[in-house]
Amino acid sequence: MFYADGKLQYKVRVEKPNPLFARALQQAIGGVEGEIRVMMQYLFQAWGARGPKKYRDMLLATGTEEIAHVEMLATAVALNLEGAPTALQEEAARDPLVHCILGGMNLRHYLSTGLGATPENANGVPFNMSHVYASGNLAADMYANVAAEATGRVLATRLWHLTDDPGMKDMLAFNIARDTMHQQQWLAVLEELGGYEAQLPIPNSNPPQSEHTEHSYVFYDPRIGADVVPLAGRYTQGPSLDGKGEFSVEAAVPFGEEPMLAPPVPAGFAQQEQMTGHTGMLGALKHALGGEG
Amino acid sequence: MFYADGKLQYKVRVEKPNPLFARALQQAIGGVEGEIRVMMQYLFQAWGARGPKKYRDMLLATGTEEIAHVEMLATAVALNLEGAPTALQEEAARDPLVHCILGGMNLRHYLSTGLGATPENANGVPFNMSHVYASGNLAADMYANVAAEATGRVLATRLWHLTDDPGMKDMLAFNIARDTMHQQQWLAVLEELGGYEAQLPIPNSNPPQSEHTEHSYVFYDPRIGADVVPLAGRYTQGPSLDGKGEFSVEAAVPFGEEPMLAPPVPAGFAQQEQMTGHTGMLGALKHALGGEG
Amino acid sequence: MFYADGKLQYKVRVEKPNPLFARALQQAIGGVEGEIRVMMQYLFQAWGARGPKKYRDMLLATGTEEIAHVEMLATAVALNLEGAPTALQEEAARDPLVHCILGGMNLRHYLSTGLGATPENANGVPFNMSHVYASGNLAADMYANVAAEATGRVLATRLWHLTDDPGMKDMLAFNIARDTMHQQQWLAVLEELGGYEAQLPIPNSNPPQSEHTEHSYVFYDPRIGADVVPLAGRYTQGPSLDGKGEFSVEAAVPFGEEPMLAPPVPAGFAQQEQMTGHTGMLGALKHALGGEG
Amino acid sequence: MFYADGKLQYKVRVEKPNPLFARALQQAIGGVEGEIRVMMQYLFQAWGARGPKKYRDMLLATGTEEIAHVEMLATAVALNLEGAPTALQEEAARDPLVHCILGGMNLRHYLSTGLGATPENANGVPFNMSHVYASGNLAADMYANVAAEATGRVLATRLWHLTDDPGMKDMLAFNIARDTMHQQQWLAVLEELGGYEAQLPIPNSNPPQSEHTEHSYVFYDPRIGADVVPLAGRYTQGPSLDGKGEFSVEAAVPFGEEPMLAPPVPAGFAQQEQMTGHTGMLGALKHALGGEG
Amino acid sequence: MFYADGKLQYKVRVEKPNPLFARALQQAIGGVEGEIRVMMQYLFQAWGARGPKKYRDMLLATGTEEIAHVEMLATAVALNLEGAPTALQEEAARDPLVHCILGGMNLRHYLSTGLGATPENANGVPFNMSHVYASGNLAADMYANVAAEATGRVLATRLWHLTDDPGMKDMLAFNIARDTMHQQQWLAVLEELGGYEAQLPIPNSNPPQSEHTEHSYVFYDPRIGADVVPLAGRYTQGPSLDGKGEFSVEAAVPFGEEPMLAPPVPAGFAQQEQMTGHTGMLGALKHALGGEG
Amino acid sequence: MFYADGKLQYKVRVEKPNPLFARALQQAIGGVEGEIRVMMQYLFQAWGARGPKKYRDMLLATGTEEIAHVEMLATAVALNLEGAPTALQEEAARDPLVHCILGGMNLRHYLSTGLGATPENANGVPFNMSHVYASGNLAADMYANVAAEATGRVLATRLWHLTDDPGMKDMLAFNIARDTMHQQQWLAVLEELGGYEAQLPIPNSNPPQSEHTEHSYVFYDPRIGADVVPLAGRYTQGPSLDGKGEFSVEAAVPFGEEPMLAPPVPAGFAQQEQMTGHTGMLGALKHALGGEG
Repeated sequence: MFYADGKLQYKVRVEKPNPLFARALQQAIGGVEGEIRVMMQYLFQAWGARGPKKYRDMLLATGTEEIAHVEMLATAVALNLEGAPTALQEEAARDPLVHCILGGMNLRHYLSTGLGATPENANGVPFNMSHVYASGNLAADMYANVAAEATGRVLATRLWHLTDDPGMKDMLAFNIARDTMHQQQWLAVLEELGGYEAQLPIPNSNPPQSEHTEHSYVFYDPRIGADVVPLAGRYTQGPSLDGKGEFSVEAAVPFGEEPMLAPPVPAGFAQQEQMTGHTGMLGALKHALGGEG
Repeated sequence: MFYADGKLQYKVRVEKPNPLFARALQQAIGGVEGEIRVMMQYLFQAWGARGPKKYRDMLLATGTEEIAHVEMLATAVALNLEGAPTALQEEAARDPLVHCILGGMNLRHYLSTGLGATPENANGVPFNMSHVYASGNLAADMYANVAAEATGRVLATRLWHLTDDPGMKDMLAFNIARDTMHQQQWLAVLEELGGYEAQLPIPNSNPPQSEHTEHSYVFYDPRIGADVVPLAGRYTQGPSLDGKGEFSVEAAVPFGEEPMLAPPVPAGFAQQEQMTGHTGMLGALKHALGGEG
Repeated sequence: MFYADGKLQYKVRVEKPNPLFARALQQAIGGVEGEIRVMMQYLFQAWGARGPKKYRDMLLATGTEEIAHVEMLATAVALNLEGAPTALQEEAARDPLVHCILGGMNLRHYLSTGLGATPENANGVPFNMSHVYASGNLAADMYANVAAEATGRVLATRLWHLTDDPGMKDMLAFNIARDTMHQQQWLAVLEELGGYEAQLPIPNSNPPQSEHTEHSYVFYDPRIGADVVPLAGRYTQGPSLDGKGEFSVEAAVPFGEEPMLAPPVPAGFAQQEQMTGHTGMLGALKHALGGEG
Repeated sequence: MFYADGKLQYKVRVEKPNPLFARALQQAIGGVEGEIRVMMQYLFQAWGARGPKKYRDMLLATGTEEIAHVEMLATAVALNLEGAPTALQEEAARDPLVHCILGGMNLRHYLSTGLGATPENANGVPFNMSHVYASGNLAADMYANVAAEATGRVLATRLWHLTDDPGMKDMLAFNIARDTMHQQQWLAVLEELGGYEAQLPIPNSNPPQSEHTEHSYVFYDPRIGADVVPLAGRYTQGPSLDGKGEFSVEAAVPFGEEPMLAPPVPAGFAQQEQMTGHTGMLGALKHALGGEG
Repeated sequence: MFYADGKLQYKVRVEKPNPLFARALQQAIGGVEGEIRVMMQYLFQAWGARGPKKYRDMLLATGTEEIAHVEMLATAVALNLEGAPTALQEEAARDPLVHCILGGMNLRHYLSTGLGATPENANGVPFNMSHVYASGNLAADMYANVAAEATGRVLATRLWHLTDDPGMKDMLAFNIARDTMHQQQWLAVLEELGGYEAQLPIPNSNPPQSEHTEHSYVFYDPRIGADVVPLAGRYTQGPSLDGKGEFSVEAAVPFGEEPMLAPPVPAGFAQQEQMTGHTGMLGALKHALGGEG
Repeated sequence: MFYADGKLQYKVRVEKPNPLFARALQQAIGGVEGEIRVMMQYLFQAWGARGPKKYRDMLLATGTEEIAHVEMLATAVALNLEGAPTALQEEAARDPLVHCILGGMNLRHYLSTGLGATPENANGVPFNMSHVYASGNLAADMYANVAAEATGRVLATRLWHLTDDPGMKDMLAFNIARDTMHQQQWLAVLEELGGYEAQLPIPNSNPPQSEHTEHSYVFYDPRIGADVVPLAGRYTQGPSLDGKGEFSVEAAVPFGEEPMLAPPVPAGFAQQEQMTGHTGMLGALKHALGGEG
């Protein structure tokens, strides 16, 4: 169960409201790198957690913190919208600035909410819950969480750079710090589980016969052409990261043949010519080429 | 530019076509853990790559390999659909098995494609390109790629377990091996860049003043109640993974106050009572309670 | 800020796990009538609340309760999935029951989560945040909330009817009770604001000149034909509900003319024939009819 | 069956075409508060209507009227686009106004339609039919309809305020009037059915044993903290609106326990450490803290 | 403006209601090949029509007919749902047939609508208005319409084959006939405009300098490998269909170079190593290979 | 299997980077008329091809070419973003131009990608794979392909017109040429199959009894009113295009009756009044009208 105290986790001040920055902040609310995503992702991971209870607890804790991050950002959007233009007056129609501000706004910030935040990204695309990863495999989920916090911290840094409002910079510097913590927290779980090498490959519980290991440590390179620079890196030679193989690199070649599907069944209602081989084709071609048809 | 040879990267055989397994395989085509996602993700990361060319090259190579994985899976779906039922004949209406097979199918496999694959997941939800992560930050992208390959390999293993068709098990054992390689490949980039600690926090290029570091290594625990088990783990004590701080744990407390938004502007067309404080409220309440109104 | 105690708001027991019921329950998690929707809707209404603080407080309180409802349902889904089939063994391929259960499942419950809930509806369609209504107008939002709780309680009742598991029936009877309360709670706000008539029309703050009131109380009936039964109801005669007019009914007639758009501009790159009136048309028609062409 | 006369229900004039206003108008076409939504919602409610025929008739009538509203708005968008810029000429690249108008446009209004409307909202997000509510319960649907017309009228009023074009203001004043009527019309159905109290709770047909009524009239308040202002309102005391209970308010407490899911099944392919309790954890932690490992 | 008479365009009878067929029929309502799509597509093409009025009229007429097709199908779904199971009783839990029917249903047909149609496809995915094509170019739109009616008629034929209900077969035979008409109708417009050759390429109004015509009639074949069968068809030789060129076939080769993007700007917050060329890479690689590091 | 050479199919130069044009170009990447769509559509048609192998080969070839088109456009977007503004500095806040450029940008081009392309359209809406048509019927697919290339060429021409950058105009002139070829290529298949008349109606393999041919060649006109201009065109008279009938035109009339659904079942939990005929209605109406109630 959940409780609220109505206060913000960190102070949210806006000195110079800016409707365009309100729109930009939406990316941190409803973008794929945003806070609704991590809030829901950690909560669903907690609620579906099987295995050691300590990970359920940790996920629940951080998922709960993230609700407060959405709250902070929604507040920041509302404050950035105060004073936003709401009309295309006749003079404004000739004033590029009003048009420009309105044109750059998420118009739903006026039309749909009366100057409040939406659960959308910076382009006004609503957040879609398919982005909530909760795989039932702890290591896979931890990497999904690191990815979310890494892209999230990149986003927060860009927002920090975009604005020159001291209040917004202050709030974002808090968010950036929390993203730092959360990145490390999920990686620390991997270390705690025995180190990330021991966790590889993920899942580390699949039976040996489920993998053709002769293909497990080869970089297949499907690039062709005289100018192609051969690849050489940590992933083309040396021991594999899981300690079970040796990396190598090979030109990609097909191990399979051309696929051959059965002809269309009558119930599929393909064209008759697909089913029969369409003898009419030759004639059509001849005709087109000026032949006798 | 791209080229094709029409052959499959690995052989795709189906001994006992099964329309339900065809539906399950769709998750590996159009699911968020699937091959369209990694194909598009690596290609977009390559096409937007800025910085050392070797990463563009590697991303392009592996993105190109993934197109062939979609090809293999689409072929596997089509082969699993051969012989699928296409009618609810009178006898079938009483035969649970035909109904059951049709009911368990992705009906679009008959209705929309005439027994071919779709770019959808196992529930028939079309893939949505918002899942393509290409952040411009190499480390963030590498973690997104590891997450994709980790959830992808979990999925492939579950599919391998689900089926007992030898041909499908063979194909999936190849896919599982490639996911092993790709997981390590992206992690190897982090190692190559100087080790994953050096990459933390991501981005590692934000200026110091953009982060309130006193919040960067603290686990804030918003869990309350007498029974709550305190958290203790790698992420609550010891040096931080980036070597720049020391982990600690604290009960979460608000650093901010209750937010206060300005009253509705007239142009927002809130209810009059929102704007005036609605003196009518008291009377309504009294009336409801049997008072004088 | 938010807090959690890790306990369920109400007990969640499943005596006879049923993967099909797990799928049905998803509608109450990620369906448009479900709990993620009300949770996010009330929280966003709270975070964007302008005007009397008491409504922000109430919305925040109930939004916080709803997080716990998602938690209960996610737990119920996970418990219903315990023991679910995860394989199409050779014998099973001939056993309709295993196929049937797998076919009726949300396959992502195995493939994507390893037997946990997803933020999707009963068809596996992920919840989309466009369903979060927070208009900035309190009365409009209250009606949106009543609608959500009314469809939500209909859904919960149908789920209660669908299952015969005593634990599930018990949990749903709690949910149904909470939906009862929440329906009334939002209507009570309208009463508190002065009664629902006084709130009509919504918004009640638009200026008189913004409405052609001669069209405000007429039921325009565009139904035609000899058999059409004329409408007569509370909305065709008698005083209007806002006390400002008298209902009437009229056959719908156009007050406007046929619209006429300008011809295509060259920069629109319509077909030349669209721009010129295509004199070739007559010839083509004649030719088709066997004329001289 | 449906018929058309090609005329507009109300006249649509645009004196000063404005591409930004065209984009804003899209919210009334393809937004969640818009006309496609109500058109499809009322038609689907009509087509699925079970019970008294008069409601099917009424829904069909008003659904048919709404098609004409989409027609009016699509015409208004097309007229607002006439004269819109379609080029970034060299001089324009330095002229903020052209950039500004193009930047504020829905670019698909030029690129995809050649100056016509789209079934999208003001941010260019296409309308998604999941917003069509037709629950089979008349009262639930009526509230969904009121909610749609209430948010719709708020939107129309904001659009009326946004523009200063006399033709557009005239058209919107007609739309606002129709929204007035439709709000009342759906509420009048509730009155006609016996009054809204008698309709509560919705559905009013569920059996008594399906509800734990001890939770049906209590406001559970999960807000905590010394500063929290206790809630007092129509919904915390006095008779419930359905006349069957008495409102009260209580601090929210959990009635359930901590949930406990079964451990991962092998077929779920969690990490081995999840399944075994991972004894390696302690060592890892010791190592991290500088212990013996 | 639009009118309705409440009657079905063609009779809709269901002798043996079948919830699985109800789900299949949904593809014809809310699928991409379905009736909502053509209804909205033709209406939006009509409402945005610029140029000869006769095409607006025709599009409006057929768009209006299509509303009646949605009505017929929605009725057919509702009738197929009558008698559908709504409970998982104890006995049913062991009866594969009930589970099978429920498992094969769109569960929202019970849970969300109480046995009525939804604007979704056969997988329960709601229709998304991005499928409405109205390009402003008449020929492009006509081809989009033919495509819609062609896939629509394939779908209707498959549905006709799937069912053995005489009433449903009767209704679908009407739909199939209408799809025949509509396919030809849109092609007839192309003929009327001067013949389809004259309409090519679409748009036929772009200026000559906007096209590098040396690439306009060549089939570039990017297939490689010893086994590749060379292509020969109507499109590799002979006069082009627009009469302006001669088809040929060539192996695809790049006309461009490798792309080179600028390095990351500091404000993009890439990793430092991306911006500097990361001299640490060599050491990491050496270390991995057992060298001196 | 697929291969890449890292080169662009055609050269991509940008002389004057323009972030607004970068946003416009996105329509050609992730719009419904764009290159991701055709790439995936042709590849899925190839992978599901049943019948003559030559069509699989051709589809595979052109699908492979289209990957290179996405590559070119993604490169063009990245180049147009170089130099884009990334900050709202104090001075900029007063400079309309910076606001204007930022306001007109896809903000995700900075916030989410660090100046790279996204798989989205010009409004930032991610591409959705439901647009991939692969019906299993060759003729239906060919028309879907023509429609895609026709709308695609209209789009490319509008982009060509929009920009004045010589490099961009050069690249688009190549794209326009390829769209010319691809339009004709798919139409040539129809000719090769025996001519488009022989392919009509699509599918041409459905059994005669599946069609009520008396409705197959009639234009039903549901337009009414004194002013309605009767339709006359190639589709209202003369031989049908498939040579099997004669076109005619008739006023649309219903061939069916009013639909009548069964009353709500108890398990649907409609309102009691829906199930009983609600005798309370009359009283409510009387009361409203001032009667005795």
